[in-house]
Amino acid sequence: MTVDTAYRHLQIQLVYQLWYTGALATIPSRTNDISLLCSFLPGAGYHSESKAKEYKHVCKRACQRVSLFCPFALTCPVLPDSPFTNAGMGSNLNLSGEIECDASIMDGKSLHYGAVGAVSGINNPVLVANRLLSEAQKGKLSAGRIPPCFLVGRGAHDWAVSHGIPPCPSEKMATKFSLSAYKRNKHKMELAEKVETGFNHHSKKRRQASETENGSGLLDTVGAIVVDREGNVAAAVSSGGLAMKHPGRVGQAAHHGCGCWAENTSTLNPYSTAVSTSGCGEHLIRTMLARECSSAMQCEDAHQALLEAMQNKFISSPFLASEDCVLGGVIVLRCCRYSDAQPSADIQAILVEFLWSHTTESMCVGYMSAQDGKAKTHISRLPPGAVAGQSLAIEGGVCRLVISPLN
Amino acid sequence: MTVDTAYRHLQIQLVYQLWYTGALATIPSRTNDISLLCSFLPGAGYHSESKAKEYKHVCKRACQRVSLFCPFALTCPVLPDSPFTNAGMGSNLNLSGEIECDASIMDGKSLHYGAVGAVSGINNPVLVANRLLSEAQKGKLSAGRIPPCFLVGRGAHDWAVSHGIPPCPSEKMATKFSLSAYKRNKHKMELAEKVETGFNHHSKKRRQASETENGSGLLDTVGAIVVDREGNVAAAVSSGGLAMKHPGRVGQAAHHGCGCWAENTSTLNPYSTAVSTSGCGEHLIRTMLARECSSAMQCEDAHQALLEAMQNKFISSPFLASEDCVLGGVIVLRCCRYSDAQPSADIQAILVEFLWSHTTESMCVGYMSAQDGKAKTHISRLPPGAVAGQSLAIEGGVCRLVISPLN
Repeated sequence: MTVDTAYRHLQIQLVYQLWYTGALATIPSRTNDISLLCSFLPGAGYHSESKAKEYKHVCKRACQRVSLFCPFALTCPVLPDSPFTNAGMGSNLNLSGEIECDASIMDGKSLHYGAVGAVSGINNPVLVANRLLSEAQKGKLSAGRIPPCFLVGRGAHDWAVSHGIPPCPSEKMATKFSLSAYKRNKHKMELAEKVETGFNHHSKKRRQASETENGSGLLDTVGAIVVDREGNVAAAVSSGGLAMKHPGRVGQAAHHGCGCWAENTSTLNPYSTAVSTSGCGEHLIRTMLARECSSAMQCEDAHQALLEAMQNKFISSPFLASEDCVLGGVIVLRCCRYSDAQPSADIQAILVEFLWSHTTESMCVGYMSAQDGKAKTHISRLPPGAVAGQSLAIEGGVCRLVISPLN
Repeated sequence: MTVDTAYRHLQIQLVYQLWYTGALATIPSRTNDISLLCSFLPGAGYHSESKAKEYKHVCKRACQRVSLFCPFALTCPVLPDSPFTNAGMGSNLNLSGEIECDASIMDGKSLHYGAVGAVSGINNPVLVANRLLSEAQKGKLSAGRIPPCFLVGRGAHDWAVSHGIPPCPSEKMATKFSLSAYKRNKHKMELAEKVETGFNHHSKKRRQASETENGSGLLDTVGAIVVDREGNVAAAVSSGGLAMKHPGRVGQAAHHGCGCWAENTSTLNPYSTAVSTSGCGEHLIRTMLARECSSAMQCEDAHQALLEAMQNKFISSPFLASEDCVLGGVIVLRCCRYSDAQPSADIQAILVEFLWSHTTESMCVGYMSAQDGKAKTHISRLPPGAVAGQSLAIEGGVCRLVISPLN
């Protein structure tokens, strides 16, 4: 795998400019009485210019309707009902024309984790993951049984329904958009197999076909990372997986350490960190990218740490040595307590750094505080000429959550 | 969580004695023309004294029939058909009285990984995991689709059958042993729920019941770690999961980084390492114990590194802060090239350290070289009075694989 080094230097310069001139630090930098910052990632894939407005709108809506649970956990229940994203309703259909979703959630305070994989007939699989997490926090089941943290398939569906999460008939989950994408993909696949078989009977040749079925823009995953004003962090992710995946395939969104990660500050970790990932599930599983990024963010320079993590632990990862195109994106949040240097010394704040990086053509992010009426959204793109899967973009901003307002 | 410090000191002394006096270093220490070392772990659970002979026999058979695939991967196809282990045939039944298995495999050379979760009707799920791994190594599928590395449930079963792995009717997979354990467990559970409900209607009380359904000795998982004479390592694990688990529950055996791990030596890693784990799946998932142990084994003192990993990353892990009983075990192998200091300088060898550690009452291990007719087996136990889930045992040995024999 070669990385366009020239481009990378250019990219780093570009990012530093953005970073230091504050062009992207549009997260409210001094808001009193702020209690929460939410960051949504409607997937790392390709967001066409023509649909940018719709994507941003969906992202904005999502941020604005993020649900917060007690003690501290989050769900992302809105994006899944959008036909423009790939989670819950409107998800990619698998080879059999069915929708199977993955989702997981991690609470940085208790470090508990809940996940569902390949689950059908549930519109908001992340609700199930969240419920698994909160049930596990209650302790053992009857007769000393240990509560599950990861359920898949029919069992996950039945568990969800028995815990009050409403099922959704599979036929209602497919949208006009996802059904027509399925038909296009199916046709493309049949054509490709015909051509490849005709061209060469050896499976090796067949396997070299590089045409991708994800041009539909449906690679998208939905993720969220949050911090409250106590500095507690959480992360969640939800995905319908790759289009035309094999039934039963589980991607990174259900995989501990791969889809999301959240860890509060501790004696070992100076920062609280939360990460959510999107992209090719198999690449994200094999590199455990969410946990790697979280761990990298304990270094002092957040931007440099994320850049190195994306470069060394993803694009050039020894775990993906045979891959020439490594597609993924992350949103990352880290924070620490911070005392204002101003003379009016009673300001206690949490300094929050919010970064995003991707090797895909584009990635759409949104962010807001719980007190804000409106979320801000942004579509990040690789510069023209940069090769997706081999280059990366990295951007970010800083804000301060004020705990003790001045008055 | 408190650890019995006094015991730990005693334990460390005990282990060092064993370690240094070579009492346990019974792995052939100088075998010419050795090509492979296999190590089987028929689970970390409780192995009763009365059945020790049977357990050891099963473990021995397993070692002796380990299958080796080309280029380099292993399967553990024998233990699963034993009624004394919990993998494939004879596995624990879940709440619905069905058998659902997890398995995974990792190849330290390519760093590829394959896994199946909650799969029914397949006698040797690790065969499916191995096939997923080898299919993924062939590259992309038609139309550029990325081959799956992790399949679950019905989809995993169908993929296996379509790739030539024979299905096994579910009714044939349950044994007299597992069925009677299921009935006992079911009765125990109903009784516990009745008592708990009668005692106190609050769920909190209900959840404090500590009686365990795993007294049947069926906590066991089957694992294997191998090294060939090139120094390539691989690891595999297979499990039927906890008895009375919820349908669809996936344990550590299918979870990347949790059930097994294998990494060849590289510029970053002085040692090749392979790890396989067994125990409470949820604890092993949340701590990612296989990968943690592998990473720890890059330190110089293997024994001390494993001791610290088991103590700090498992028993006292911040990820399990709310757990007072942390049950699990690992087998660990690490190796490096080694030049003999003898005057006959043409000996090239691989120094292999093989260690095992557990917090369960007991763990059964076996090991052999490919050239050996017979495997050696050993049941490791916590000393009397040590509290399972809070204390640990650690043992191991060293051997040398000779690459260029003297003659």
